Amino acid sequence: MRGGGVVDFSMAQKRPAVVLLSGGLDSTTVLASAIRDGYSVNALSFSYGQRHNREIEAARRIAELYGVVRHEIARIDLRAFGGSALTSDIDVPKGRDIKSEGEVPITYVPARNTIFLSYALAFAEVTQSRDIFIGVNALDYSGYPDCRPAYISAFETMANLATRAATDGDAVRIRAPLIDLTKAQIIQLGVSLGVDYSLTTSCYDPSGDKACGECDACQLRLAGFRIAGLIDPIAYTKSTLVQT
Amino acid sequence: MRGGGVVDFSMAQKRPAVVLLSGGLDSTTVLASAIRDGYSVNALSFSYGQRHNREIEAARRIAELYGVVRHEIARIDLRAFGGSALTSDIDVPKGRDIKSEGEVPITYVPARNTIFLSYALAFAEVTQSRDIFIGVNALDYSGYPDCRPAYISAFETMANLATRAATDGDAVRIRAPLIDLTKAQIIQLGVSLGVDYSLTTSCYDPSGDKACGECDACQLRLAGFRIAGLIDPIAYTKSTLVQT
Repeated sequence: MRGGGVVDFSMAQKRPAVVLLSGGLDSTTVLASAIRDGYSVNALSFSYGQRHNREIEAARRIAELYGVVRHEIARIDLRAFGGSALTSDIDVPKGRDIKSEGEVPITYVPARNTIFLSYALAFAEVTQSRDIFIGVNALDYSGYPDCRPAYISAFETMANLATRAATDGDAVRIRAPLIDLTKAQIIQLGVSLGVDYSLTTSCYDPSGDKACGECDACQLRLAGFRIAGLIDPIAYTKSTLVQT
Repeated sequence: MRGGGVVDFSMAQKRPAVVLLSGGLDSTTVLASAIRDGYSVNALSFSYGQRHNREIEAARRIAELYGVVRHEIARIDLRAFGGSALTSDIDVPKGRDIKSEGEVPITYVPARNTIFLSYALAFAEVTQSRDIFIGVNALDYSGYPDCRPAYISAFETMANLATRAATDGDAVRIRAPLIDLTKAQIIQLGVSLGVDYSLTTSCYDPSGDKACGECDACQLRLAGFRIAGLIDPIAYTKSTLVQT
């Protein structure tokens, strides 16, 4: 209808997507990249018996900042099953949790990404989303079996047999845009997208508003900023580590 | 050690397994068959925003009767996502919910079996189980995409990439022993295993202790007993249906 009134199709043309948002550095970068790519984002976070609620609060602030269409916090309780330092009373190890080939870190939560992606699949179905974004990356899959590309691909195959999508021909895609990136590359991507990393939280064992600087997650994050030639804007208990 | 003391290896030799137990006819039959096959059973039930709690109570009684090693009730809330008559305010349809090819019943819960199997995978990991039993069957997969053999097989492939099992070479198996059986065949199997079907509940819309006799689940169940030449031992509001 050339010559007709100006119609803004910008909203109508946006494809809905689900973004798994933990409030951490990786998932916030994924959210920023999905927004940049024009998706209409439905964010999904989990309250799963973590020792702290800081990451849920971070996820809320980040979802609001990015103006997501909808943000759901699903409460799941993996503590009943036990088996991980992140959800039970086992001490979180200090220092880099380096594992030999085939060994799995103690902070591993059984089937966690499978449970998260399963909820995302349900949420995708009710929001008519076909794209599900998850922030797994190369560093993770050195230790966690459910962060490897072969796992993501197998989940996608299963998902396309599981749902209504299977009957209407429009395939579900599990998108892991960080999967081949190092932490430093993720930070560089996020900075190029204008991500404010002061809003994100990564520490497994924070005290008040400060990250411990010693756990595996802190050390990976600090090393990433260092390699990227940037200063991490969050506060650490061990302030000396920030400058190294 | 011939001639040595008599040692009872019967407990030690039992392989642990996870059985998804809804308290319904199908999953109770699966539990009985896993017990018969010598598994040491860890039962897993879900409280997921159903309108009624009868099936959880049925699952508890059945798990106790069969002396399962452990019975966990995982609370998950799928209502936040909406989209199904079983978890939201949409009316449950009366009569057989017959669908044409490719259509999905309104009672479908988004990604439900994927979420259930994902929790089962976590529970299997912490109980050192390699076998996960689920009661999906041929009647279900006429309407629900996540009950088809291809789906179960794809979940198994994904599961073996998801967990520690992936690193120790002992594969996870998703076992669906009813998958090719009709409701009448399932009932005949259960009766041969001594299942007391008066303990099971199937109705989507019960009143007090009585099943409605009209919803899809009741009609399938009643037809199954009729074809098997047996009387369903549970109480129905519409008692005439029991005799047809």
